[in-house]
Amino acid sequence: MAQDLRSQELKNPVDVAEYLFRRLHQVGVRSVHGLPGDYNLVALDYLPKAGLHWVGNCNELNAGYAADGYARVKGISALVTTFGVGELSAANAIAGAYSEYVPIVHVVGYPTTAAQRDGALLHHTLGNGDFNAFNKMFRQISCAVSLLNDPHEAATLIDNAIRECYLKSRPVYISLPTDIVTKKVDGDRLNTPLDLSYPPNEEEKEDYVVDVILKYLHAAKNPVILVDACAIRHRALEETHELIEKSGIPTFVAPMGKGAVNETLPNYGGVYAGDGSNEGVRERVESSDLVLSIGAVKSDFNTAGFTYRVSKLKSIDFHSYGITVRYSEYPGVRMNTVIRKVTQKMGKLNIEAGPKPNNNIPHAELSSSEPTITQAWLWPRLGQWLKENDIVITETGTSNFGIWETRFPANVTAISQVLWGSIGYATGSCQGAALAAKEKGIKRTILFTGDGSFQLTAQEVSTMIRNNLNPIIFVICNDGYTIERCIHGWKAAYNDIQLWDYKALPKVFGGTPETMAVYRVETKDELEKLFSDKEFSSGENDRLRFVELVMPWDDAPVALKSTAESAAKRNSQA
Amino acid sequence: MAQDLRSQELKNPVDVAEYLFRRLHQVGVRSVHGLPGDYNLVALDYLPKAGLHWVGNCNELNAGYAADGYARVKGISALVTTFGVGELSAANAIAGAYSEYVPIVHVVGYPTTAAQRDGALLHHTLGNGDFNAFNKMFRQISCAVSLLNDPHEAATLIDNAIRECYLKSRPVYISLPTDIVTKKVDGDRLNTPLDLSYPPNEEEKEDYVVDVILKYLHAAKNPVILVDACAIRHRALEETHELIEKSGIPTFVAPMGKGAVNETLPNYGGVYAGDGSNEGVRERVESSDLVLSIGAVKSDFNTAGFTYRVSKLKSIDFHSYGITVRYSEYPGVRMNTVIRKVTQKMGKLNIEAGPKPNNNIPHAELSSSEPTITQAWLWPRLGQWLKENDIVITETGTSNFGIWETRFPANVTAISQVLWGSIGYATGSCQGAALAAKEKGIKRTILFTGDGSFQLTAQEVSTMIRNNLNPIIFVICNDGYTIERCIHGWKAAYNDIQLWDYKALPKVFGGTPETMAVYRVETKDELEKLFSDKEFSSGENDRLRFVELVMPWDDAPVALKSTAESAAKRNSQA
Repeated sequence: MAQDLRSQELKNPVDVAEYLFRRLHQVGVRSVHGLPGDYNLVALDYLPKAGLHWVGNCNELNAGYAADGYARVKGISALVTTFGVGELSAANAIAGAYSEYVPIVHVVGYPTTAAQRDGALLHHTLGNGDFNAFNKMFRQISCAVSLLNDPHEAATLIDNAIRECYLKSRPVYISLPTDIVTKKVDGDRLNTPLDLSYPPNEEEKEDYVVDVILKYLHAAKNPVILVDACAIRHRALEETHELIEKSGIPTFVAPMGKGAVNETLPNYGGVYAGDGSNEGVRERVESSDLVLSIGAVKSDFNTAGFTYRVSKLKSIDFHSYGITVRYSEYPGVRMNTVIRKVTQKMGKLNIEAGPKPNNNIPHAELSSSEPTITQAWLWPRLGQWLKENDIVITETGTSNFGIWETRFPANVTAISQVLWGSIGYATGSCQGAALAAKEKGIKRTILFTGDGSFQLTAQEVSTMIRNNLNPIIFVICNDGYTIERCIHGWKAAYNDIQLWDYKALPKVFGGTPETMAVYRVETKDELEKLFSDKEFSSGENDRLRFVELVMPWDDAPVALKSTAESAAKRNSQA
Repeated sequence: MAQDLRSQELKNPVDVAEYLFRRLHQVGVRSVHGLPGDYNLVALDYLPKAGLHWVGNCNELNAGYAADGYARVKGISALVTTFGVGELSAANAIAGAYSEYVPIVHVVGYPTTAAQRDGALLHHTLGNGDFNAFNKMFRQISCAVSLLNDPHEAATLIDNAIRECYLKSRPVYISLPTDIVTKKVDGDRLNTPLDLSYPPNEEEKEDYVVDVILKYLHAAKNPVILVDACAIRHRALEETHELIEKSGIPTFVAPMGKGAVNETLPNYGGVYAGDGSNEGVRERVESSDLVLSIGAVKSDFNTAGFTYRVSKLKSIDFHSYGITVRYSEYPGVRMNTVIRKVTQKMGKLNIEAGPKPNNNIPHAELSSSEPTITQAWLWPRLGQWLKENDIVITETGTSNFGIWETRFPANVTAISQVLWGSIGYATGSCQGAALAAKEKGIKRTILFTGDGSFQLTAQEVSTMIRNNLNPIIFVICNDGYTIERCIHGWKAAYNDIQLWDYKALPKVFGGTPETMAVYRVETKDELEKLFSDKEFSSGENDRLRFVELVMPWDDAPVALKSTAESAAKRNSQA
C-alpha cells in the first residue's frame, strides 16, 4: 500500500527493467548478449522499447565472450543471463573481463524477492534456500554487485553499477528479481545522463608529478615510450597519441598494447616483449635511459616469460590508479591528464631514432620452396593484407603470439586475451566485435583462431549468421593444442583433438550462399590468391567468410616457443 | 633439505599425482573427463599408469556435465581442469552436481606453490596476485575444498576429499599445483582402501525410530511408498527395493525418483507429482493415511509447481541426514539401515491396491489421423520400445516432463536435472553416461534433448565419436525453447533459435558410416518404422545413432504446461 502510494507520487514512473535498459542505451549499448531463461523472460520484453537488439547466443559462456568483444569495440556492453544455471556458465567470461579490464554490465534474472525471503525450493537453486551463493561467487570477479531487491533503491543501484562498470572498466553484477522488473521508479532521472567522467586529480599534486616527469624527460638522452593494455582499457589513447606524435619519441607496444598506437607513425618501433621482441626492439628499449611506460601489465605472456628487462631506475609508470617515477610513488594521480600536461609542457627533447618495423617476409621464408604456410611467413604477410580500421581478433595460442610480427595499418583494433588466456574466447569475442563493428560502420572484423580452440565455442558462428554478421574467420588447422604442446606433451594424446570438417559448419548453422562462403587454403600460393581475391577481401562483402587455414602441427611463432619454454620451466620449479 | 630427508624415509614413495589417480581408480573411476591446460599437463602424464582413460572433452562445461552423467552411472567421477579459465567454465556443471547430489572429484591444475606465494602475475590469473579467488568461489558449490600446497599433508587431504565426495555425494575441489605433482608421498597408504562406509546410526536411537515407524505403519489402513531422488543419490535403493517387494505396499515415484523403482513390479503405481501425476495416482496417494516418503526433494519442478498435497501428519520422511515421523524429528539417523530394519520387522500390513500404470497410447491419440508426432503419443510409445537396463537421459524441457508418462522396464537408469535444470546438460551428460555404460557392459544409452538445448553443448557429440561411444540420440526439433515459451513469451523472438542442419553434425565431427548413422523422423509411422528396425534398436550396434525427431513447436507434455503456468504465476508475484 505504502509502495503504491509512493509510485503514484512519481511524476513520470517507469518500470525498473525499462529504466535499466534505457540507461544502458544512454551509455552506448545497442545490442544485448545472452540467453533467455524463465527468471529473465519478462525483462527481455522491455528490450525493444529501449531500442536494444537481442542477440540470442547459443550458450552463456559464448555470450559472455561476445559481450567482452563488443565492449572492447563499443566501450561497454551488457549481458543478460538467468539465475544459477545461466550466470555460472558465464563465470569464466566475466573473470576474463575482470582480469583484462573490460566493462560488462551483467544482469542476472532472479527469482522473486518473496521466493528469496522464503528460501523456496525452486529450480536453478542449490536446493538449500540460499539465494546469495552465486552473487557471492561473482563478488570475486566483479567490481560492484547490486542486488535489486527493493524498488526504492533500484534506480540508484542501477546508476551506480553502470557508472562503476564504466569508470573501473570492469564487470558489474546486477540481480533483477522477476517481481522487481515491473516495479516503478522515477523516470525523470533518465533526463540527466550518468556522469561518466573520471574524478579529476588534485591539481597541486598533479602539477608536482608533471614537473618531476618533465625533469627526467628533459634529462634523458634517448627516451622511449612503451604502451600497454591499460592505456587502451583505461581510455588514455587520445592523450597517448598526442604525446607520441608531438614528441617524436620512439614508441613501442607490449603485446597487450597491440593496436594502441598508430603503427604507421615514423616513430613507431615495434613490439617490445623482452626475448620475444621484434627485431632490434629489445636492444633499443633496454639501452634507453628513460622508458615512459603507459598502462603496463607485466604478466608472463605479455613479457615473453618475464624477460622484461627495464630497470625501475629508468622507468616512469603511468597508470589509472597512480604514477610511479623510478621508486617515487604518486598514488591517486590518474594518468590521463598527466600525460596531456606533459605533452603540453615538454618542449624540445633529445630523440634517438629506433628501429623501423615492416611487414617484410623473412628472407629464409622468401627463398624457401616449401609450399606450406609457416608461422614465420603468415604474420608479416597478414600485415600487408590488413586495412585501416580493421578489427583483428587473435586466439590465445599461435595466433596471439604470431600477431607480434604483424605491423598494423592505422586505426586497427586488436583483440586478444594475453593475460586471462582462455581458449575459445576469440570465436565468441568475434561475434560481439563484429556486431559492434556493424553498429559503428567498421567494415572488416577478422578472426584468427586454432582448431583446438575453435571447438570450445564453435556454435557462435551460428549466432553470427543469425545476426547477419560478416566477419572473416580463419581457423588454423594444425591438429591440436599447439600452445600446450610447446609447454608440455609435444606428442601427448591429451593435446590431440578430434578432426572436424570445420568448413562444413557454417552451412550446418543455417548459412546459405547469400550469407556465407567457405574456403580451404593449404599453401602460400592459395592464400596469396585468396588475399588478392577482391570479393573475399572486400569490406563491402556482406557474407561471413570462413577459411580453413592449414598449417603444420609442429610450427609455432618464435615468441610462443620461448614463452612456453619459460612457462614449462616455471611449472616445474618448487 | 628436510623435505628430501623425509621423502627418503618413505618406504614406498609415489608421486602425488600417481597417488591421487590410483585412489580414484580404487573407488571405481576408469575414465577422467576434462581438457588439457598448461597447469595440469604434467599431471595428465600420470593417467595411463594409474589405469585411467583420458576422455578429452571439447570444453569444460561439457566435461563437467559428462562427469556428472558418468557419476550417476558409475557412482563417482573425476574431472580435471586448469586454473581459472578451465575450472570456472565448469562452475555451472559443478553447481548442478552440488544441487543434485552427484559426486565429482574436481581436480584443478594450479600454478606452483612458489608462484602462489610470490603472487606472480601469471596468465589465467586475475592479475591481482590472488590465487585463492577461484577456490573461494567453489567453496559455495563443493562439500570439501582441499588445497594441496604441502606434500606432507597431500595424501591425507586427497583421501579426505575423495571420502567426503563419496559419502556426501557432492562435488569436492582439489587444487594440484604443478610443483606438487611430482612430490613424494607414502605409497603404502594405497594398500589400505578408503573406508567409504557410512558411519552407523546410534543403535538405541535407530531402534527407537524403527519402533515408532512400525507403530504408524501397523496402524495404517492404506499406506503408500513414495520414492524420490535422494534414495538414488544417497544409495538407499537396495533397501528401498527390499521394502517395496516384501511389503507389497503401492509404490510411486516423484519425477526425480524415476528409475529408482522397478516399474514392472505389480505394486508400482506410477509418478506422483501433485497436479502433474499419472492418471489415478494423485487420488491414490493423497487419500492414503500414511506416506513413506524416501529421499524426497520437494522442489517446484518435482512437484508440478508445489502441488504436492500430502499432510505432514500422514508422512514419514526418510533422509540421509535424519528421519521425520509426522512432526517428530530424529536428526542424525540415516535412512538406509532404518529402512532395512523396518522391512525385517514389519510383518503383515494392510494393503489397498493402487493404480496400474501402463504404456498404452491415450485413446485420443490412437484415433487421431494426424501423422505428426505429439508429446502425448511419444512418451508411452517410448516405454514400449525401451529395454531392461537401458540408460535414458532427458533434457530439462519437454523431455524431462514427457518422461513422466513413460513406464520403464526393469533396471532402467533415468538421468535428468529436475532441480538444477540447466539446459545443455543432457548432451554432455550423455557422453559421460554412455562411457560409463560401456565400462559396465550396459548396452544402450538413449538421449532425448530439444533443439534449443542441444545448441548449447552440441560439440560433445564429437567427444562421443572420438571415444567410440554408441548412444542413441534423439534431438526433438520443435523450433526453439518450448519450456520457456510455456512460461513466458509464447511467440517471443527471444525464444526462437537459429535453424541448424542437426543431422549433418556427426559427420562434421568426424563420424563415418562405420561409427555413426543419422535419421530424420517426421511422422508417427516413420518413428514406428525406426523403432522396429532391429539394427537401429539393437544394443549390439556399435554406431552412434542420431535422430532428428520433428515435433510441433507448440506442443508440450501436460505436466510441463501446468508446471510452467505455476512458475509464471510465481515469477510475477510480489
